[in-house]
Amino acid sequence: MEFRYPNGKKFKSTAKSKQFSEKKLQREAISHGKRGMTLEEDLNETNQYYLDVGKAVIHKKPTPVQIVNVDYPKRSAAVIKEAYFKQASTTDYNGVYQGFYIDFEAKETRNKQSFPLQNFHDHQLSHMEQVEKHNGIAFVIIRFSLTEEIFLLPYQSLEKYWTRMKQGGRKSMTKEEIQQNGYQISLGIQPRIDYLTIVDHLCK
Amino acid sequence: MEFRYPNGKKFKSTAKSKQFSEKKLQREAISHGKRGMTLEEDLNETNQYYLDVGKAVIHKKPTPVQIVNVDYPKRSAAVIKEAYFKQASTTDYNGVYQGFYIDFEAKETRNKQSFPLQNFHDHQLSHMEQVEKHNGIAFVIIRFSLTEEIFLLPYQSLEKYWTRMKQGGRKSMTKEEIQQNGYQISLGIQPRIDYLTIVDHLCK
Repeated sequence: MEFRYPNGKKFKSTAKSKQFSEKKLQREAISHGKRGMTLEEDLNETNQYYLDVGKAVIHKKPTPVQIVNVDYPKRSAAVIKEAYFKQASTTDYNGVYQGFYIDFEAKETRNKQSFPLQNFHDHQLSHMEQVEKHNGIAFVIIRFSLTEEIFLLPYQSLEKYWTRMKQGGRKSMTKEEIQQNGYQISLGIQPRIDYLTIVDHLCK
Repeated sequence: MEFRYPNGKKFKSTAKSKQFSEKKLQREAISHGKRGMTLEEDLNETNQYYLDVGKAVIHKKPTPVQIVNVDYPKRSAAVIKEAYFKQASTTDYNGVYQGFYIDFEAKETRNKQSFPLQNFHDHQLSHMEQVEKHNGIAFVIIRFSLTEEIFLLPYQSLEKYWTRMKQGGRKSMTKEEIQQNGYQISLGIQPRIDYLTIVDHLCK
Protein backbone atom coordinates (compact mmCIF):
# COMPACT_ATOMS: atom_id res chain seq x y z
CA MET A 1 0.00 0.00 0.00
CA GLU A 2 1.30 3.49 -0.88
CA PHE A 3 0.73 6.65 1.09
CA ARG A 4 0.91 10.11 -0.42
CA TYR A 5 1.34 13.50 1.19
CA PRO A 6 -1.30 16.16 0.41
CA ASN A 7 1.09 17.50 -2.27
CA GLY A 8 1.01 14.13 -4.01
CA LYS A 9 4.52 13.21 -3.06
CA LYS A 10 5.00 9.63 -2.05
CA PHE A 11 5.41 8.95 1.63
CA LYS A 12 8.52 6.96 2.48
CA SER A 13 8.77 5.38 5.87
CA THR A 14 11.80 6.55 7.80
CA ALA A 15 11.78 3.52 10.02
CA LYS A 16 14.80 1.43 9.27
CA SER A 17 13.52 -1.77 7.75
CA LYS A 18 16.25 -3.89 6.33
CA GLN A 19 15.99 -6.87 4.10
CA PHE A 20 16.65 -9.73 6.37
CA SER A 21 19.24 -12.44 5.98
CA GLU A 22 19.87 -15.08 8.60
CA LYS A 23 23.51 -14.10 8.56
CA LYS A 24 22.81 -10.44 9.10
CA LEU A 25 20.33 -11.10 11.85
CA GLN A 26 22.77 -13.31 13.65
CA ARG A 27 25.47 -10.68 13.40
CA GLU A 28 23.28 -7.81 14.50
CA ALA A 29 21.00 -9.44 17.04
CA ILE A 30 23.82 -10.97 19.01
CA SER A 31 25.25 -8.31 21.19
CA HIS A 32 28.85 -9.34 20.95
CA GLY A 33 29.77 -8.69 17.36
CA LYS A 34 30.16 -11.42 14.81
CA ARG A 35 30.12 -14.17 17.34
CA GLY A 36 27.82 -17.14 16.71
CA MET A 37 27.74 -17.26 12.95
CA THR A 38 30.34 -19.45 11.34
CA LEU A 39 30.24 -21.90 14.20
CA GLU A 40 26.51 -22.41 13.69
CA GLU A 41 26.93 -22.97 9.95
CA ASP A 42 29.77 -25.42 10.53
CA LEU A 43 27.74 -27.32 13.10
CA ASN A 44 24.67 -27.46 10.87
CA GLU A 45 26.78 -28.90 8.08
CA THR A 46 28.35 -31.35 10.48
CA ASN A 47 24.97 -32.50 11.75
CA GLN A 48 23.68 -32.88 8.20
CA TYR A 49 26.72 -35.02 7.43
CA TYR A 50 26.12 -37.17 10.52
CA LEU A 51 22.50 -37.60 9.41
CA ASP A 52 23.43 -38.45 5.80
CA VAL A 53 25.93 -41.13 6.76
CA GLY A 54 23.62 -42.52 9.43
CA LYS A 55 25.89 -41.66 12.34
CA ALA A 56 23.57 -39.56 14.52
CA VAL A 57 20.34 -37.54 14.50
CA ILE A 58 21.18 -34.13 15.94
CA HIS A 59 19.39 -30.90 15.03
CA LYS A 60 19.50 -27.25 15.94
CA LYS A 61 16.25 -26.12 17.52
CA PRO A 62 14.39 -23.27 15.81
CA THR A 63 15.05 -19.77 17.14
CA PRO A 64 12.38 -19.07 19.76
CA VAL A 65 10.17 -16.17 18.72
CA GLN A 66 7.41 -14.42 20.66
CA ILE A 67 4.64 -13.80 18.15
CA VAL A 68 2.51 -10.73 18.87
CA ASN A 69 0.56 -9.99 15.71
CA VAL A 70 -0.41 -12.12 12.71
CA ASP A 71 -2.16 -11.15 9.49
CA TYR A 72 -4.43 -13.64 7.76
CA PRO A 73 -4.75 -12.34 4.22
CA LYS A 74 -7.37 -14.13 2.13
CA ARG A 75 -6.03 -16.76 -0.25
CA SER A 76 -2.49 -16.69 1.11
CA ALA A 77 -0.35 -17.81 3.99
CA ALA A 78 -0.54 -16.18 7.43
CA VAL A 79 2.02 -13.39 7.80
CA ILE A 80 3.63 -12.66 11.14
CA LYS A 81 3.66 -8.84 11.38
CA GLU A 82 5.13 -8.37 14.83
CA ALA A 83 7.33 -10.72 16.78
CA TYR A 84 10.35 -10.58 19.06
CA PHE A 85 13.35 -12.77 19.69
CA LYS A 86 13.00 -14.71 22.92
CA GLN A 87 15.76 -16.05 25.07
CA ALA A 88 15.97 -19.84 24.71
CA SER A 89 15.15 -21.80 27.85
CA THR A 90 17.26 -24.78 26.84
CA THR A 91 20.35 -25.30 24.72
CA ASP A 92 20.37 -24.99 20.93
CA TYR A 93 21.25 -28.52 19.83
CA ASN A 94 20.03 -31.95 20.83
CA GLY A 95 19.54 -35.42 19.44
CA VAL A 96 20.52 -39.05 19.66
CA TYR A 97 23.85 -40.80 19.04
CA GLN A 98 24.24 -44.55 19.60
CA GLY A 99 21.30 -44.48 21.98
CA PHE A 100 22.77 -41.59 23.99
CA TYR A 101 20.88 -38.35 24.43
CA ILE A 102 23.17 -35.51 23.29
CA ASP A 103 22.58 -31.90 24.32
CA PHE A 104 24.82 -28.90 23.74
CA GLU A 105 25.19 -25.19 23.28
CA ALA A 106 27.67 -23.55 20.86
CA LYS A 107 29.28 -20.13 21.29
CA GLU A 108 32.10 -18.07 19.85
CA THR A 109 34.29 -15.29 21.15
CA ARG A 110 36.66 -12.82 19.52
CA ASN A 111 38.71 -12.72 22.71
CA LYS A 112 42.15 -14.25 22.46
CA GLN A 113 42.95 -15.52 25.92
CA SER A 114 39.65 -16.12 27.69
CA PHE A 115 36.04 -17.09 27.10
CA PRO A 116 33.39 -14.86 28.74
CA LEU A 117 30.84 -16.80 30.77
CA GLN A 118 28.14 -14.26 29.97
CA ASN A 119 27.74 -16.23 26.74
CA PHE A 120 25.68 -18.67 28.79
CA HIS A 121 22.62 -18.24 30.97
CA ASP A 122 21.49 -19.62 34.31
CA HIS A 123 18.62 -21.60 32.80
CA GLN A 124 20.96 -23.18 30.24
CA LEU A 125 23.24 -24.34 33.03
CA SER A 126 20.30 -25.81 34.97
CA HIS A 127 19.03 -27.46 31.81
CA MET A 128 22.40 -29.12 31.24
CA GLU A 129 22.52 -30.18 34.88
CA GLN A 130 19.12 -31.87 34.51
CA VAL A 131 20.24 -33.58 31.30
CA GLU A 132 23.28 -35.07 33.02
CA LYS A 133 21.13 -36.18 35.96
CA HIS A 134 19.03 -38.19 33.51
CA ASN A 135 22.11 -39.78 31.94
CA GLY A 136 22.21 -37.57 28.89
CA ILE A 137 25.49 -36.07 27.68
CA ALA A 138 25.70 -32.28 28.00
CA PHE A 139 28.53 -30.03 26.86
CA VAL A 140 29.38 -26.77 25.13
CA ILE A 141 31.30 -26.24 21.92
CA ILE A 142 33.29 -23.02 22.05
CA ARG A 143 35.27 -21.32 19.36
CA PHE A 144 37.97 -18.69 19.49
CA SER A 145 37.09 -17.04 16.18
CA LEU A 146 40.35 -15.20 15.61
CA THR A 147 42.48 -18.31 15.89
CA GLU A 148 39.77 -20.72 14.69
CA GLU A 149 40.37 -22.98 17.69
CA ILE A 150 37.40 -25.09 18.71
CA PHE A 151 36.94 -26.93 21.99
CA LEU A 152 34.38 -29.26 23.47
CA LEU A 153 34.00 -28.57 27.17
CA PRO A 154 31.92 -31.07 29.19
CA TYR A 155 29.17 -29.63 31.38
CA GLN A 156 30.97 -30.61 34.60
CA SER A 157 33.90 -28.32 33.77
CA LEU A 158 31.72 -25.44 32.65
CA GLU A 159 29.78 -25.79 35.89
CA LYS A 160 33.00 -25.48 37.91
CA TYR A 161 33.82 -22.08 36.35
CA TRP A 162 30.20 -20.98 36.49
CA THR A 163 30.16 -21.63 40.24
CA ARG A 164 33.46 -19.79 40.64
CA MET A 165 31.87 -16.76 38.96
CA LYS A 166 28.74 -17.00 41.10
CA GLN A 167 30.94 -17.00 44.17
CA GLY A 168 32.51 -13.73 43.10
CA GLY A 169 35.35 -15.08 40.99
CA ARG A 170 36.32 -14.15 37.44
CA LYS A 171 33.62 -13.81 34.80
CA SER A 172 35.44 -15.89 32.22
CA MET A 173 37.38 -19.10 31.73
CA THR A 174 40.98 -18.72 30.65
CA LYS A 175 42.06 -20.47 27.48
CA GLU A 176 44.46 -22.51 29.56
CA GLU A 177 41.60 -23.77 31.74
CA ILE A 178 39.67 -24.72 28.62
CA GLN A 179 42.69 -26.52 27.21
CA GLN A 180 43.14 -28.44 30.45
CA ASN A 181 39.48 -29.40 30.93
CA GLY A 182 38.19 -29.57 27.38
CA TYR A 183 39.04 -31.33 24.16
CA GLN A 184 40.27 -29.48 21.11
CA ILE A 185 38.52 -30.34 17.84
CA SER A 186 40.46 -29.75 14.64
CA LEU A 187 38.54 -28.28 11.72
CA GLY A 188 37.92 -30.85 9.00
CA ILE A 189 36.30 -30.97 5.59
CA GLN A 190 33.68 -33.63 6.13
CA PRO A 191 32.53 -33.29 8.78
CA ARG A 192 33.67 -29.76 9.55
CA ILE A 193 33.62 -30.13 13.33
CA ASP A 194 33.79 -33.81 14.22
CA TYR A 195 32.63 -33.46 17.82
CA LEU A 196 31.24 -37.00 18.04
CA THR A 197 34.77 -38.43 18.19
CA ILE A 198 35.10 -36.51 21.47
CA VAL A 199 31.66 -37.64 22.61
CA ASP A 200 32.93 -41.22 22.16
CA HIS A 201 35.39 -40.51 24.98
CA LEU A 202 32.69 -38.97 27.16
CA CYS A 203 30.42 -42.02 26.75
CA LYS A 204 33.02 -44.34 28.19
CA MET B 1 3.19 6.59 13.40
CA GLU B 2 -0.15 8.10 12.30
CA PHE B 3 -1.16 8.86 8.76
CA ARG B 4 -3.78 11.45 7.89
CA TYR B 5 -5.76 12.00 4.73
CA PRO B 6 -5.55 15.47 3.15
CA ASN B 7 -8.84 16.30 4.92
CA GLY B 8 -7.15 15.64 8.27
CA LYS B 9 -9.06 12.45 8.90
CA LYS B 10 -6.97 9.66 10.38
CA PHE B 11 -5.97 6.86 8.07
CA LYS B 12 -6.94 3.43 9.32
CA SER B 13 -5.36 0.40 7.76
CA THR B 14 -7.89 -1.96 6.26
CA ALA B 15 -5.54 -4.88 6.40
CA LYS B 16 -6.82 -7.36 8.92
CA SER B 17 -4.30 -7.33 11.72
CA LYS B 18 -5.49 -9.22 14.73
CA GLN B 19 -4.07 -9.22 18.20
CA PHE B 20 -2.32 -12.51 18.45
CA SER B 21 -2.81 -15.18 21.05
CA GLU B 22 -1.01 -18.50 20.91
CA LYS B 23 -4.39 -20.21 21.14
CA LYS B 24 -5.87 -18.27 18.27
CA LEU B 25 -2.85 -18.80 16.09
CA GLN B 26 -2.95 -22.48 16.71
CA ARG B 27 -6.63 -22.66 15.86
CA GLU B 28 -6.37 -20.57 12.73
CA ALA B 29 -2.99 -21.54 11.35
CA ILE B 30 -3.66 -25.25 11.53
CA SER B 31 -5.69 -26.20 8.56
CA HIS B 32 -7.86 -28.76 10.27
CA GLY B 33 -9.90 -26.74 12.73
CA LYS B 34 -9.28 -26.75 16.44
CA ARG B 35 -6.92 -29.65 16.33
CA GLY B 36 -3.58 -29.34 18.13
CA MET B 37 -4.42 -27.00 20.96
CA THR B 38 -5.54 -28.61 24.17
CA LEU B 39 -3.28 -31.57 23.61
CA GLU B 40 -0.29 -29.25 23.37
CA GLU B 41 -1.21 -27.44 26.58
CA ASP B 42 -1.73 -30.72 28.40
CA LEU B 43 1.61 -32.05 27.18
CA ASN B 44 3.45 -28.88 28.13
CA GLU B 45 2.00 -29.14 31.63
CA THR B 46 2.91 -32.80 31.78
CA ASN B 47 6.49 -32.10 30.69
CA GLN B 48 6.79 -29.31 33.25
CA TYR B 49 5.59 -31.73 35.90
CA TYR B 50 8.13 -34.35 34.80
CA LEU B 51 10.84 -31.68 34.99
CA ASP B 52 9.74 -30.42 38.42
CA VAL B 53 9.71 -33.85 40.01
CA GLY B 54 12.98 -34.79 38.30
CA LYS B 55 11.47 -37.58 36.20
CA ALA B 56 12.51 -36.49 32.69
CA VAL B 57 13.72 -33.51 30.65
CA ILE B 58 11.38 -33.22 27.66
CA HIS B 59 10.56 -29.97 25.88
CA LYS B 60 8.48 -28.80 22.96
CA LYS B 61 10.65 -27.24 20.27
CA PRO B 62 9.91 -23.63 19.29
CA THR B 63 7.63 -23.13 16.28
CA PRO B 64 9.88 -22.79 13.23
CA VAL B 65 9.53 -19.38 11.64
CA GLN B 66 11.06 -18.05 8.43
CA ILE B 67 12.13 -14.50 9.20
CA VAL B 68 12.08 -12.14 6.22
CA ASN B 69 12.32 -8.64 7.60
CA VAL B 70 13.57 -7.24 10.89
CA ASP B 71 13.51 -3.68 12.24
CA TYR B 72 16.29 -2.49 14.49
CA PRO B 73 14.87 0.58 16.19
CA LYS B 74 17.38 2.58 18.17
CA ARG B 75 17.38 1.97 21.90
CA SER B 76 15.02 -0.99 21.78
CA ALA B 77 14.79 -4.64 20.89
CA ALA B 78 14.80 -5.88 17.30
CA VAL B 79 11.26 -6.26 15.94
CA ILE B 80 10.45 -8.95 13.41
CA LYS B 81 8.18 -7.23 10.86
CA GLU B 82 7.65 -10.05 8.39
CA ALA B 83 7.89 -13.76 8.97
CA TYR B 84 6.10 -16.92 7.95
CA PHE B 85 5.31 -20.22 9.60
CA LYS B 86 7.57 -22.98 8.33
CA GLN B 87 6.85 -26.66 8.29
CA ALA B 88 8.88 -28.43 10.96
CA SER B 89 11.50 -30.86 9.65
CA THR B 90 11.44 -32.98 12.78
CA THR B 91 8.88 -33.80 15.46
CA ASP B 92 7.72 -31.31 18.07
CA TYR B 93 8.91 -32.90 21.30
CA ASN B 94 12.15 -34.49 22.39
CA GLY B 95 14.27 -35.05 25.46
CA VAL B 96 15.80 -37.57 27.81
CA TYR B 97 14.19 -40.08 30.19
CA GLN B 98 16.30 -42.52 32.20
CA GLY B 99 19.08 -42.19 29.66
CA PHE B 100 16.71 -42.89 26.74
CA TYR B 101 16.31 -40.42 23.93
CA ILE B 102 12.57 -39.68 23.58
CA ASP B 103 11.08 -38.18 20.41
CA PHE B 104 7.44 -37.69 19.54
CA GLU B 105 4.79 -35.77 17.67
CA ALA B 106 1.32 -34.97 19.06
CA LYS B 107 -1.84 -34.51 17.01
CA GLU B 108 -5.61 -34.29 17.52
CA THR B 109 -8.59 -35.04 15.36
CA ARG B 110 -12.28 -34.23 15.63
CA ASN B 111 -13.11 -37.40 13.74
CA LYS B 112 -14.84 -40.10 15.73
CA GLN B 113 -13.81 -43.35 14.15
CA SER B 114 -10.50 -42.77 12.38
CA PHE B 115 -7.33 -40.70 12.51
CA PRO B 116 -6.26 -39.00 9.24
CA LEU B 117 -2.65 -39.69 8.32
CA GLN B 118 -2.35 -36.29 6.64
CA ASN B 119 -1.67 -35.04 10.18
CA PHE B 120 1.86 -36.28 9.66
CA HIS B 121 4.46 -35.55 6.99
CA ASP B 122 7.00 -37.63 5.11
CA HIS B 123 9.99 -35.94 6.73
CA GLN B 124 8.53 -36.56 10.19
CA LEU B 125 8.22 -40.25 9.42
CA SER B 126 11.81 -40.42 8.15
CA HIS B 127 12.97 -38.49 11.20
CA MET B 128 11.28 -41.01 13.51
CA GLU B 129 12.75 -43.88 11.52
CA GLN B 130 16.25 -42.41 11.97
CA VAL B 131 15.63 -41.95 15.69
CA GLU B 132 14.68 -45.60 16.12
CA LYS B 133 17.71 -46.68 14.11
CA HIS B 134 19.90 -44.87 16.62
CA ASN B 135 18.13 -46.54 19.55
CA GLY B 136 15.94 -43.61 20.46
CA ILE B 137 12.26 -44.09 21.26
CA ALA B 138 9.88 -42.54 18.72
CA PHE B 139 6.10 -42.43 18.87
CA VAL B 140 3.05 -40.26 18.34
CA ILE B 141 0.47 -39.16 20.87
CA ILE B 142 -2.94 -38.82 19.26
CA ARG B 143 -6.15 -37.52 20.70
CA PHE B 144 -9.74 -37.92 19.65
CA SER B 145 -10.90 -34.51 20.86
CA LEU B 146 -14.62 -35.22 20.95
CA THR B 147 -14.29 -38.23 23.21
CA GLU B 148 -11.08 -37.06 24.93
CA GLU B 149 -9.42 -40.39 24.25
CA ILE B 150 -5.63 -40.27 24.06
CA PHE B 151 -3.35 -42.97 22.65
CA LEU B 152 0.37 -43.48 22.38
CA LEU B 153 1.18 -45.21 19.11
CA PRO B 154 4.77 -46.46 18.64
CA TYR B 155 6.52 -45.43 15.45
CA GLN B 156 6.56 -49.01 14.10
CA SER B 157 2.75 -49.14 14.03
CA LEU B 158 2.38 -45.70 12.52
CA GLU B 159 4.88 -46.70 9.86
CA LYS B 160 2.75 -49.75 8.98
CA TYR B 161 -0.31 -47.59 8.22
CA TRP B 162 1.81 -44.95 6.52
CA THR B 163 3.19 -47.58 4.13
CA ARG B 164 -0.34 -48.90 3.52
CA MET B 165 -1.39 -45.38 2.48
CA LYS B 166 1.67 -44.93 0.27
CA GLN B 167 0.78 -48.18 -1.46
CA GLY B 168 -2.65 -46.83 -2.31
CA GLY B 169 -4.52 -47.93 0.81
CA ARG B 170 -6.70 -45.85 3.11
CA LYS B 171 -5.54 -42.39 4.16
CA SER B 172 -6.30 -42.92 7.83
CA MET B 173 -5.96 -45.39 10.68
CA THR B 174 -9.20 -46.70 12.15
CA LYS B 175 -9.73 -46.25 15.85
CA GLU B 176 -9.78 -50.02 16.20
CA GLU B 177 -6.33 -50.26 14.63
CA ILE B 178 -5.08 -47.64 17.04
CA GLN B 179 -6.62 -49.48 19.98
CA GLN B 180 -4.99 -52.73 18.89
CA ASN B 181 -1.52 -51.28 18.21
CA GLY B 182 -1.35 -48.37 20.63
CA TYR B 183 -1.73 -47.76 24.32
CA GLN B 184 -4.56 -45.69 25.75
CA ILE B 185 -3.52 -43.02 28.25
CA SER B 186 -6.14 -41.91 30.74
CA LEU B 187 -6.31 -38.18 31.51
CA GLY B 188 -4.99 -37.40 34.98
CA ILE B 189 -4.55 -34.36 37.17
CA GLN B 190 -0.82 -34.43 37.78
CA PRO B 191 0.52 -35.22 35.31
CA ARG B 192 -2.30 -34.63 32.82
CA ILE B 193 -1.08 -37.16 30.23
CA ASP B 194 1.23 -39.63 31.91
CA TYR B 195 2.80 -41.00 28.74
CA LEU B 196 6.05 -42.05 30.43
CA THR B 197 4.29 -44.99 32.09
CA ILE B 198 3.70 -46.28 28.55
CA VAL B 199 7.28 -45.46 27.55
CA ASP B 200 8.37 -47.71 30.44
CA HIS B 201 6.78 -50.62 28.52
CA LEU B 202 8.46 -49.58 25.27
CA CYS B 203 11.92 -49.45 26.90
CA LYS B 204 11.72 -53.08 27.96
